[in-house]
Amino acid sequence: MNNYKPLIDYINKYITLTSEEINLLEEHTTYRKYLKGQYIVQQGDVCRYESFIVKGCLKTFYMDKDGLEHVVLFGIENWWAADLGSFLTQTPADYNVQCLEHTEVIQFSFDSLELLYQKIPKLERFFRLIIQRAFVTSEKRIIRNFSLSAKERYIEFKNLYPQIEQRVPQYLIASYLGITKEFLSKVRSEIIKEQ
Amino acid sequence: MNNYKPLIDYINKYITLTSEEINLLEEHTTYRKYLKGQYIVQQGDVCRYESFIVKGCLKTFYMDKDGLEHVVLFGIENWWAADLGSFLTQTPADYNVQCLEHTEVIQFSFDSLELLYQKIPKLERFFRLIIQRAFVTSEKRIIRNFSLSAKERYIEFKNLYPQIEQRVPQYLIASYLGITKEFLSKVRSEIIKEQ
Repeated sequence: MNNYKPLIDYINKYITLTSEEINLLEEHTTYRKYLKGQYIVQQGDVCRYESFIVKGCLKTFYMDKDGLEHVVLFGIENWWAADLGSFLTQTPADYNVQCLEHTEVIQFSFDSLELLYQKIPKLERFFRLIIQRAFVTSEKRIIRNFSLSAKERYIEFKNLYPQIEQRVPQYLIASYLGITKEFLSKVRSEIIKEQ
Repeated sequence: MNNYKPLIDYINKYITLTSEEINLLEEHTTYRKYLKGQYIVQQGDVCRYESFIVKGCLKTFYMDKDGLEHVVLFGIENWWAADLGSFLTQTPADYNVQCLEHTEVIQFSFDSLELLYQKIPKLERFFRLIIQRAFVTSEKRIIRNFSLSAKERYIEFKNLYPQIEQRVPQYLIASYLGITKEFLSKVRSEIIKEQ
């Protein structure tokens, strides 16, 4: 299926799949389209899938007891979306994953993924490598929160994720950076003046 | 080697190693003792090893440009210590890992680990599973920072890691929780009064 090309290309950067293995992968996953605003995961529900993003943009966020949204992560093409803790233990999710654009994903259910690990053991390596990357990204972000000012964090965000900066509303970026949208707007005009 | 029993028991919870594989593992890793105060990883150096903690207690921390220490993580028996980003890319570390007690570890170098993945492919599964756990732990901590007060975070920390709470000085716990040691002391006396 042509729809699967982005996923296969992505996996083949880490391991090499035979055409038989590609068929297995297509057979045991689901291609799914979501509308802008729809939820892939809802806080309190069990996260049923690990989703590879073929097309679109989404946010992972936590809503606190006062109804305040905290953006944890964005996701665009070639990223993954899930509440991994919930997915792995099949218990209620801490996070929401909501589409900011029309989004197309390829979904691995828990059982399918376990079956795929058995049928294609080198997928263990693939998922080890990408989870390592995710973990390192999360550690680097902790460091930036210690070591950089809000302005520096915004500049870093723009440099690391120029595509996301253009596709996502500013108030969500402010939430991701842990600052108010007024403060982000002040920071942005400072940067413009300096240029 | 009897020294290796904790590591082998730990690995065997996830996969099953043959005695030949255990020999390979011992052959391609190093058993190392550190004194209290010594560093396993220093910020700015390349992190050469993933270290499994057989005995002891350590802290992972970042020192900011003003010389302030930010504790990211503690480690005790059966945990792992490394700056994973540095280890995986063999580039300078963001973090320090320093022993709070006399500590004994089993160390995997980058090259040895790659070789072990080739010789014992099921180690891919083992490391995938433990890195997933580490990633989920890190995500759950982000959630707690959004959703819990400092007092609630301290109570949660005590419940999750009773052993660490007893072995580690309070000012380091305060740093881990992102609060001052004066505030932690206030929180602790509140909790004692409530009991």
